[in-house]
Amino acid sequence: MKIESVDFFYLSMPEVLDIGDGSQDALLVRVRAGGFEGWGECEAAPLPSIAAWMCPRSHSACKPVRDSVLGQTLDGVADLTRIGNLVRENSLDLLQADHTWSGVDIALWDLLGKKLGEPVWKLLGYEKSFPKTPYASVLFGNTPQETLKKARAATAAGYKAAKFGWGPFGRTTVAADRDQLQAAREGLGADGILLVDAGTVWVDDVIRASQALPALHECRALWLEEPFVSGALDSYRLLAEKAGSLKLAGGEGAHNIWMARHLMQHGGVGYIQIDCGRIGGITVAKQAADDAVARGVTFVNHTFTSHLALSASLQPFAGLEKDVICEYPVEPKSLAVEVTANQLKRDANGQVRAPDTPGLGITPDLASVQRYLVPVEISVRGTVLYRTSVL
Amino acid sequence: MKIESVDFFYLSMPEVLDIGDGSQDALLVRVRAGGFEGWGECEAAPLPSIAAWMCPRSHSACKPVRDSVLGQTLDGVADLTRIGNLVRENSLDLLQADHTWSGVDIALWDLLGKKLGEPVWKLLGYEKSFPKTPYASVLFGNTPQETLKKARAATAAGYKAAKFGWGPFGRTTVAADRDQLQAAREGLGADGILLVDAGTVWVDDVIRASQALPALHECRALWLEEPFVSGALDSYRLLAEKAGSLKLAGGEGAHNIWMARHLMQHGGVGYIQIDCGRIGGITVAKQAADDAVARGVTFVNHTFTSHLALSASLQPFAGLEKDVICEYPVEPKSLAVEVTANQLKRDANGQVRAPDTPGLGITPDLASVQRYLVPVEISVRGTVLYRTSVL
Repeated sequence: MKIESVDFFYLSMPEVLDIGDGSQDALLVRVRAGGFEGWGECEAAPLPSIAAWMCPRSHSACKPVRDSVLGQTLDGVADLTRIGNLVRENSLDLLQADHTWSGVDIALWDLLGKKLGEPVWKLLGYEKSFPKTPYASVLFGNTPQETLKKARAATAAGYKAAKFGWGPFGRTTVAADRDQLQAAREGLGADGILLVDAGTVWVDDVIRASQALPALHECRALWLEEPFVSGALDSYRLLAEKAGSLKLAGGEGAHNIWMARHLMQHGGVGYIQIDCGRIGGITVAKQAADDAVARGVTFVNHTFTSHLALSASLQPFAGLEKDVICEYPVEPKSLAVEVTANQLKRDANGQVRAPDTPGLGITPDLASVQRYLVPVEISVRGTVLYRTSVL
Repeated sequence: MKIESVDFFYLSMPEVLDIGDGSQDALLVRVRAGGFEGWGECEAAPLPSIAAWMCPRSHSACKPVRDSVLGQTLDGVADLTRIGNLVRENSLDLLQADHTWSGVDIALWDLLGKKLGEPVWKLLGYEKSFPKTPYASVLFGNTPQETLKKARAATAAGYKAAKFGWGPFGRTTVAADRDQLQAAREGLGADGILLVDAGTVWVDDVIRASQALPALHECRALWLEEPFVSGALDSYRLLAEKAGSLKLAGGEGAHNIWMARHLMQHGGVGYIQIDCGRIGGITVAKQAADDAVARGVTFVNHTFTSHLALSASLQPFAGLEKDVICEYPVEPKSLAVEVTANQLKRDANGQVRAPDTPGLGITPDLASVQRYLVPVEISVRGTVLYRTSVL
């Protein structure tokens, strides 16, 4: 079959707050081919991602993503690798292209799964979709008291693991960070799995990051996530050497397979966190999962948006029985919940699994999508080159 | 002074061909502050870069570049580092932001230089702007005969060095590549400096790249540029080890300081090629130049567009006497020549220098800019959020 159409739907909460909550907007992708429809999602910045899809060509290595996708043959898994390579070659100098292509790749996997009657994880070569232990992904409170409350709420809601991140963490004193960490540990109880996300706050400063290590050990954090920006490989490696039993986690910013590999190979991370909506879709995320297995690194999804994005992000490691921890947005905005007709609910054991239904197994709720839809129109030289399609 | 306004002007040839010629469009940036005006240029993909400037906020780490720039204080060089860091923090998840900010940073340096009455290279801490030996940057011909003609033309035009890149090179057989290389060498004569640009054609395939080494040695190429994509550090290092006296060059795709460092530290390149219009402007390019000096790597500019971009790209290594080779677009489209009122012409020795005039020393030709201007309008929820400003 040929890829007939690709449409983007920019969704947003009526008001987007200045907080580290990525569920406030979304860029939904619909693909159509051979009478089938697939859905995907790009992570972050809807408008630049749309522009990367439809902008006029700059030169042979700076073409809009569209040029490498529309009209392409899609008959099997190999076509997705081929089209992805085409995008990277033709859009080499278009930085945003990786994010745009990611959502399209996810939607194409969904479509292919529906056409072939198989869940995506099966098409990826896995025999089984193993249960994952979701951690509640929450933001640090503004005060330790708020964090304590959030940790208690996560425990009360049945989560065995919780990740605290962003907010004031790392921005003031080492003592203030310790208070936050102790509040999180207290709220989770002795048995809860505590994960900490520094949100790149120390950029590349190993000394400042090292000062947080004692408190992280005291509160028995399992991992310290993104102490630094993705590129600061030396800082990652130096801190990993100092951190002992505390493992570093990172990778959500990876927008190609190389960045994920560098973090494992040169950065010494113990957990590689991949966002399918950024790295180049499910295809590249699976390459990262294969690499992680080969290197003894644990794969974890990065997901802060809808359950469509969640299903996509579970597929690349659905069949890795030992890699059990998974990110699960626990306090998303209504948009992220309502735009899908079904969700990946936790089972009686508190676990989630990539669904067994064909494709990604998550269906958009078109009425809700309509309600959050942000219409976009882009004119170049007085001609409308892009207008949000009808749902 | 406060940054009052930043405006983008998307320029394009009437027709953009499907060839590896980056001079077919441009994104000019105008900044205004304290009664001064500065000009810069972003490399590649004007529309996504404009979108990254003005898009609605997604969350606290995915804001439009505008939010970190407008209204900021600009009194000295330190402010540029500060604002750049703010952009990277506030636009962490907005991939295209690095390209957008690059052009703004360049324009702000131009403005600051004009205000302080100093050339940018002096503000960067250099005592002198040393002459550079420009190489003619041309595309391989479709046939060896065409390449021979181009090499002869470069020599006849007084160039002591020429770089051949893209086109059919690396895409068919090892023998075909050899024919192309021999034609280039023949056309340059025995004394000409020959540089070869593989344009990432081998992605990460060391074996295929290695097969080209004998012919590269035979024709005495000084460097082999971008055999692989920027991220393929292992491939770079392995090939560098096999290449002996032939040095690898790369880095034009670097959109932050980390990528440039990785190529030097883990990729083993002998020449680091930096495009100010991508890496984060002159500020980050200068960091890369300092790093290169410390590591014994030679810094080279990457420039394929206007002489405004050329002046910007010369500043970060203007004071490095030994790093003499510089890229100089020799067959640009009329746009790239006409949009500036003055150009960096070669002197009697065939050399060029970053100008001694305040700022970047290159003035846009507003009538020409007007002629190539591509008006853009972006509406979100029915409201025009962006419309090309009046020149």
